[in-house]
Amino acid sequence: MKVGAWALRPIRPCPEGDAVEVIDQRALPHRLQFERLASAPAVRDAVRDMWVRGAPLIGACAAYGIALQARSDPGNAALEAAAHLLRSARPTAVNLGWAVDRMVAALLPLAPAARAEAAWRLAGDLAEEDVRVNAEIGRHGLELLKAIAARRPGPVQVLTHCNAGWLATVDWGTATAPIYLAHEQGLPIHVWVDETRPRNQGAGLTAWELGAAGVPHTVVADNAGGHLMQHGRVDLVIVGCDRVSLRGDVCNKIGTYLKALAARDNGVPFYAAMPLSTLDRRLRDGLADIPIEERAAREVTHVAGRTAAGEIVEVQIVPDGSAAANPAFDVTPARLVSGLITERGIVAADEAAIAALLG
Amino acid sequence: MKVGAWALRPIRPCPEGDAVEVIDQRALPHRLQFERLASAPAVRDAVRDMWVRGAPLIGACAAYGIALQARSDPGNAALEAAAHLLRSARPTAVNLGWAVDRMVAALLPLAPAARAEAAWRLAGDLAEEDVRVNAEIGRHGLELLKAIAARRPGPVQVLTHCNAGWLATVDWGTATAPIYLAHEQGLPIHVWVDETRPRNQGAGLTAWELGAAGVPHTVVADNAGGHLMQHGRVDLVIVGCDRVSLRGDVCNKIGTYLKALAARDNGVPFYAAMPLSTLDRRLRDGLADIPIEERAAREVTHVAGRTAAGEIVEVQIVPDGSAAANPAFDVTPARLVSGLITERGIVAADEAAIAALLG
Repeated sequence: MKVGAWALRPIRPCPEGDAVEVIDQRALPHRLQFERLASAPAVRDAVRDMWVRGAPLIGACAAYGIALQARSDPGNAALEAAAHLLRSARPTAVNLGWAVDRMVAALLPLAPAARAEAAWRLAGDLAEEDVRVNAEIGRHGLELLKAIAARRPGPVQVLTHCNAGWLATVDWGTATAPIYLAHEQGLPIHVWVDETRPRNQGAGLTAWELGAAGVPHTVVADNAGGHLMQHGRVDLVIVGCDRVSLRGDVCNKIGTYLKALAARDNGVPFYAAMPLSTLDRRLRDGLADIPIEERAAREVTHVAGRTAAGEIVEVQIVPDGSAAANPAFDVTPARLVSGLITERGIVAADEAAIAALLG
Repeated sequence: MKVGAWALRPIRPCPEGDAVEVIDQRALPHRLQFERLASAPAVRDAVRDMWVRGAPLIGACAAYGIALQARSDPGNAALEAAAHLLRSARPTAVNLGWAVDRMVAALLPLAPAARAEAAWRLAGDLAEEDVRVNAEIGRHGLELLKAIAARRPGPVQVLTHCNAGWLATVDWGTATAPIYLAHEQGLPIHVWVDETRPRNQGAGLTAWELGAAGVPHTVVADNAGGHLMQHGRVDLVIVGCDRVSLRGDVCNKIGTYLKALAARDNGVPFYAAMPLSTLDRRLRDGLADIPIEERAAREVTHVAGRTAAGEIVEVQIVPDGSAAANPAFDVTPARLVSGLITERGIVAADEAAIAALLG
């Protein structure tokens, strides 16, 4: 995406093929900072510690992690160890395992000497595929926005949760792709941005993205969305997803389920933008079977931000001695999902419809 | 309530009758700090700027505000100006106007020379009445907790939102009164504390209260409650309220509605603890007619907390230039409320039932 004069992506392969450069998302929105990752363990650390995050982006990062491994040691054992390492970095998003599996399956049949070059190219293909997929999601989602705009004057009011923007993908974003397309085409649009505690990916990343692109937006506490919907101030909810089950249960950032409930209670359509790589084809019951990552309590007990002096610090918001729990995702049952916006079109969150789409 | 060796209340009339001392809740949980308020405008500032908050407490504070006014100028015009000033401090909680009206109505028939003393006594009566009311709410609410404890082993799991604890009242709290009673009586209990963005009254105040009283608790992001309920980890939701309509719509801290939706979706009982002074007898449709305070965007864009060095600072969490909106309350429709825990017993959130309770 364009940020001022720059065309930015959250991941950029270095031309020498010996590393990737990523935006360190922990420093946003206050500082745009790049980090160089030159090995599979470095990629694992960056994924685990959320320098990079977002299901599609961590898939692309993991693919490059395998490619970096193939460069240093392309043997079967080394590749499989790297695959294991990368898969374990975060448990919930399905794209991580999907990308790793795809890389390993493509490389193992090749002669070890040929793997490094092939892996670098494959990782690049996978990244470019993500860009194309998101552009298609944008094209299909745009129709939803156009239909709302055609019904009444004023900007289309979209609410989104967490960051499913270009920072969470290789480009375009998933939930934001229709928004950016609409904005480019001059369709008036306004985005309610859930701040998305505990890590504030909405306040820090989505707001930064939208601001950089000139898209009108307003940050709200995660608590506010129900009230906004009760008062007719949201036309449509679009979120991303980290894993979707065969029957259409949507696992996404913690709190998504609450917005889906409010949307249902107020007749507001609720869509998840889903690259088909986010579908877990081995899993039917999202609520029972998707592993929910429990992250460090410190993400709840402390908040990172910029002081008046411009320093980025963490402040503690709970009393000493109070425990905190931090489930990172929740599952929105398919019954609350109006539809899934995929690269092949919009599909009902329904087992038969999803199966038909997959063909 | 006891905090270590101290018996504390969030408001304490000074024995000389010339001021009240309040806990400055902005400094909690990091520092216990008292402020002296010696005039009606000082009380207004403390209410408006949320040194004190919580519907019952701001009612008691406002009563003392009128008493301080009666001490400096007990004339009708001065009292009515003070009443107007105090009422305007915050628009949503009905207790503020209720307490002010009650004070003025009792004082105007008296000779001006008799008003100061009477007002001080009346404000004290009103404060003690709040303590009694909350103890009764505790007694009735305790039955709900006991019934859950009787059904299965392990601690009763309560989720609460915002702070409806003793810091929000003169003592006991409303939503917390049953919890403190249960804990005193040895009933095992654990409280999920919503942090309650944007001002973090859960993380800062409720967690501090519960910790000081030794009640097991865990702070969670506001986003987490739905997930906890989906997985059977919440037996009961109890919240406070700032205004309740005649048909039982509950206005409370922003985000309450989302928890009520999740409770309904998962078969978890959802109760509001309601002193009858919180009932707005002129109002039927809570959603249409309760004014929702819109507070400063800075409460969303910035978070206050304690640095590693022990300093309390505010950090900015959104990019420069991003707008924020901050509706402070929402309205939970009566249909989602399992019952109202009042000083006269538990009543259905239903117009006829409430009318019958009022007698």
